[in-house]
Amino acid sequence: MTRPLALTMGDPAGIGGELTLRAWLALRARGPAFLALDDPARLAGLTHGLGLPVPLVEITDPAAAAGHFSAALPVLPIRLAEPAVPGQPNPANATAIVGAIEQGARLALAGAVGGLITNPINKAALYHAGFAHPGHTEFLAALTGASNRPVMMLACPALRVVPVTVHASLRNAIAQLDTASIIEVARIAHAALRAQFGLATPRLAVAGLNPHAGESGALGEEESTIIAPAIARLRQDGIAVTGPHSPDTMFTAEARAGYDAAICMYHDQALIPLKTLDMHHGVNVTLGLPIVRTSPDHGTAYDIAGTGRADPSSLIAAIEMAAELARGADRP
Amino acid sequence: MTRPLALTMGDPAGIGGELTLRAWLALRARGPAFLALDDPARLAGLTHGLGLPVPLVEITDPAAAAGHFSAALPVLPIRLAEPAVPGQPNPANATAIVGAIEQGARLALAGAVGGLITNPINKAALYHAGFAHPGHTEFLAALTGASNRPVMMLACPALRVVPVTVHASLRNAIAQLDTASIIEVARIAHAALRAQFGLATPRLAVAGLNPHAGESGALGEEESTIIAPAIARLRQDGIAVTGPHSPDTMFTAEARAGYDAAICMYHDQALIPLKTLDMHHGVNVTLGLPIVRTSPDHGTAYDIAGTGRADPSSLIAAIEMAAELARGADRP
Repeated sequence: MTRPLALTMGDPAGIGGELTLRAWLALRARGPAFLALDDPARLAGLTHGLGLPVPLVEITDPAAAAGHFSAALPVLPIRLAEPAVPGQPNPANATAIVGAIEQGARLALAGAVGGLITNPINKAALYHAGFAHPGHTEFLAALTGASNRPVMMLACPALRVVPVTVHASLRNAIAQLDTASIIEVARIAHAALRAQFGLATPRLAVAGLNPHAGESGALGEEESTIIAPAIARLRQDGIAVTGPHSPDTMFTAEARAGYDAAICMYHDQALIPLKTLDMHHGVNVTLGLPIVRTSPDHGTAYDIAGTGRADPSSLIAAIEMAAELARGADRP
Repeated sequence: MTRPLALTMGDPAGIGGELTLRAWLALRARGPAFLALDDPARLAGLTHGLGLPVPLVEITDPAAAAGHFSAALPVLPIRLAEPAVPGQPNPANATAIVGAIEQGARLALAGAVGGLITNPINKAALYHAGFAHPGHTEFLAALTGASNRPVMMLACPALRVVPVTVHASLRNAIAQLDTASIIEVARIAHAALRAQFGLATPRLAVAGLNPHAGESGALGEEESTIIAPAIARLRQDGIAVTGPHSPDTMFTAEARAGYDAAICMYHDQALIPLKTLDMHHGVNVTLGLPIVRTSPDHGTAYDIAGTGRADPSSLIAAIEMAAELARGADRP
C-alpha cells in the first residue's frame, strides 16, 4: 500500500484550510493520497461556510489514509485552542500550528508518510508565541536533525531555480555572496536532483551576478573573483556545470533545455523568471533535509482568507511534486 | 506616398548585412518599406555567398525607396574602405559604419525617412578609429541635438520595460539609483508612450529594488527612501503610476495587464522577464530623441556572422515597431 503524504494546517487564519479542501476535490480521484494535520471542526466549518462538498474522516493511524482518500479527506486531528477567524491571526493557536509541523516532521522521519507538504504560516504571529526559528524551513531542519543547511528550490514544469542568497536586501545579497556558499548550495542541489528527482547526471547552470555576466570585468568583478572559482571547484567534483551565464538570456526556452536547475545569485534573479513563466504552479522544495518537503509558493493571504477566492494550483502542484520526490527517494 | 524607414549597415563584420537581406525577404510583400544605408557591393556579395535571392537597387533619393521596395531592396550607398570579412572587425571601415549612422540621423531629422533602425555595432572596434561616444544611443542623441537624456525601452508584444540604470554592475546600479533619475526616466517614458505609442493615458508600474519590494523595510530601505518619493512626485504630475511593486510578481500575465510599461531599477530586472517571455521579438526603442529609433535586441554576433544562421526576428520586429512609432509620431 502506498504511503500517504501529510499536509499541515498552516496558519488557520490564512487560506491553508480552504486550499486543503480544494486540493482534495482536485486529487480525490487520481491521487496522490494525503492526510491533513488539522482541526476537523475548523475544516468542517470551512466546508459549510464555502459550500465545498468535502466529507471528512478522522483517523489515528496514517496508514489508514490511502484507503479513505477517494471517499473522504483523512484528518489526523490537531485541535485549535480557539476558533480560527479568517484574516485574524491568533497567538492562542500557535501551539496547534507548530504542533502540526512537528507531527508532520515526525511522521515523515519515521517513514509513516512519504513526504510533508506545509501550508503557509506567518512567522510574526508565531514569534509572539515564542517560536524561535527564522522560518518554517529552519524549524524543519532542526526537527529533522538535518546535517546540511536547508536550501530552497523553486520549481515549475518549465524551470527549477535555486537561489544562493535568499531573504536579504539586494545590497546585502551582493555582500553575502561568496564562493563557499555557491559550492555548498550547488552540491546540495546536485545531490537532491540525483536522490529525489531521479536524474542520473544533473546539469547545473550557474548565473552571473551582473548584466551580461560582468562582460569580462567591464560590468563587475564577482563573476571572476567569486563565481568562476566555485564553478571550477564543482567541476573538480565531477558535477556537470556551466556558467557564469548572462542572467538575461539563461531562462529562455532554448537555454532551459540545456540544464536541470539554475543556481541563482539572488532572490529575484531566481523568482522573476520562475513566476513570469508560471505564476500558479510554482512549488517550493526544501533540499538538504532527510525528508521530502514541499510547500506552495505563496503566503497566508489573510486579505482573501475565508472568501473562497484563493487559487489551490500551487498547493496541488506541491502535493504532486512531493509524491514524485517520495517515489524518487524510494528508488534503489 | 509613405515615407520609408532607414536601416543602417551596423558593423559589416557582424550579422547586420545578412539580417538586412532576410528582413527584406520577410517584408517585401507586406512592408513596411525601408532603405539600407549600406555598401551595395558587400550586400551583393552576401546575397551570392548565402544564396539569398535579393535584388538590389541603388537609389540617391530616399523618396524612391517605397516604389522599388516590393521588387528590390533599395540601397542608399555608403561605401566601405575595405571588403568586410565576417567575424573580423576592421578599423578601416569605421568611417563607413559611423557615416551610415550620421546619414540615417540626418534623413530622419529632415523627415525624409519616418524613422531609423540601426544594425548592431561594436563600440570597441570604433573606439580604435576615434569614436568618442559611450554608445550608439549617445551618439544619436548628440547627432539629433536631443534635449533629454536618451532612455532605453525594451519592448515585445507581451511587455515593455524601461530600466532606470543600465550598463553598470549590480553593485553600481544600486549606488547610482536616485529619486531624480526614476522621475526623469518615468517622465520620458510617459511622454513617449503618449507621443509615439499613441496611448492617451499611459499606465506605469514602478518596480521595487529588493525582494518583495523591501517587505516594509525588513529587506531593504530603497523602496521608502528612493522609490516611493519618485512615485509620489510622478502622481503630482498627473501620471497614472503604481508601485513600488514586488519585482517577482509584477511580470505575470495578470500583472502585465495592469500597466503599459514597467519602470525597472536595474538591467536584469528589466531584461530577465523580457527575454524569458520573448527571446526573439525584443526590440530596443530609444525614447527621448527627436526621431524614431529602434534596434534589434542583440549584438554583432561575430561568431556566426557569414554562416547564414543568424535569426532576423528581432530586426524584423524592430522595423515593424519603427513603422508603428512613425505613424504614432505623425498623428495630429
